[in-house]
Amino acid sequence: MRDLPELAARVREFVAERDWDRFHSPKNLAMALSVEASEVVELFQWLTEEESAALDDDRHRRVAEELADVLWFLVRLSDRLDIDLLEAAERKLAANAAKYPADRVRGDARKYDEY
Amino acid sequence: MRDLPELAARVREFVAERDWDRFHSPKNLAMALSVEASEVVELFQWLTEEESAALDDDRHRRVAEELADVLWFLVRLSDRLDIDLLEAAERKLAANAAKYPADRVRGDARKYDEY
Amino acid sequence: MRDLPELAARVREFVAERDWDRFHSPKNLAMALSVEASEVVELFQWLTEEESAALDDDRHRRVAEELADVLWFLVRLSDRLDIDLLEAAERKLAANAAKYPADRVRGDARKYDEY
Amino acid sequence: MRDLPELAARVREFVAERDWDRFHSPKNLAMALSVEASEVVELFQWLTEEESAALDDDRHRRVAEELADVLWFLVRLSDRLDIDLLEAAERKLAANAAKYPADRVRGDARKYDEY
Repeated sequence: MRDLPELAARVREFVAERDWDRFHSPKNLAMALSVEASEVVELFQWLTEEESAALDDDRHRRVAEELADVLWFLVRLSDRLDIDLLEAAERKLAANAAKYPADRVRGDARKYDEY
Repeated sequence: MRDLPELAARVREFVAERDWDRFHSPKNLAMALSVEASEVVELFQWLTEEESAALDDDRHRRVAEELADVLWFLVRLSDRLDIDLLEAAERKLAANAAKYPADRVRGDARKYDEY
Repeated sequence: MRDLPELAARVREFVAERDWDRFHSPKNLAMALSVEASEVVELFQWLTEEESAALDDDRHRRVAEELADVLWFLVRLSDRLDIDLLEAAERKLAANAAKYPADRVRGDARKYDEY
Repeated sequence: MRDLPELAARVREFVAERDWDRFHSPKNLAMALSVEASEVVELFQWLTEEESAALDDDRHRRVAEELADVLWFLVRLSDRLDIDLLEAAERKLAANAAKYPADRVRGDARKYDEY
């Protein structure tokens, strides 16, 4: 797998071969995306932050699988809506850089979550 | 932006410049990932499936922004855990192809969500 | 079970008997609450809206179980933070009634989700 | 507000007066429930577990408001599906008590999240 467009094409093909398109309205795909993201959360919810940074092999593998599921639906939903994910991410990085200038944020005592 | 490794590097740099690493335990990033996925859901929750496939320009743009946020935390969390997202997605596609053979699934009357 | 305070007391006792309090920081309980809410979503994600209003007995029973799990963590988190849920709901109803006057909302062409 | 049935009745009335029933398919209400649960998570995601147990007044008030929103949709969805929440919670407590006997769980070295 080289890149996101190739993944999108392979997911599209996978879905078409199974006649699953009819289930894949953007509304349904958004639901599936959030369900998969919650399955990532489930693997972390009772761990301390320290434990979450030192996963054993089994849990690390399960996290990787759940992140792959998130990517699957993220790519699928973007493909359905003709959204270029990397381009959207690039725009977001530029917007965030303007909103949170590094030199001002770094020395700022405000809590991170107030940004 | 060419690919996911470049995005991961740029997000890493963005975070380091702002001294935000200390907030980015995998546990916290998993929470943020699911919060962003829910912000996608929020844009679809009162639309019919039909409406969700015919978004007006303003909502389409907001969906793209939220999907970029999901990708941001997905890439960030994968980077923190040394997970190669495309490789994980490739493994998942192979596993799903074995689990749901196209010829058997297509003619199967069972509901999709029982798979 | 008569009411929410009784449920809160019984959940508190259940947790204490198992020495699970140490896992129940409000942060962790918030995560668990959202994971349980997603398990409700999972039961609906591939259904049409019409199908979601006409569940078969098996799915209806599973939805009831997942809603009970949501209530469990909702009551547990509120108890940990000394929040009176019914009082908070009452305040919210009053605030919403002021924000969305029935006579103005009813005839309003704006989409529901813009409220 | 005395109890959940009264809350359910008042929410039902609130919705009917605004002609919002048509948006409230169980599928949509499940989505809204999870979105509200994520808004609770958002208030905790960058806090440490310790900080989450010692909220300042402003954040405590915002958490209470979000928990009220979760309850709102939980009660609304249960009402739409004729599910008695307290009865479902009671059944769940009994099932969990059988599944996790206190004397065996307490001394068990297995991680909590394997239960």
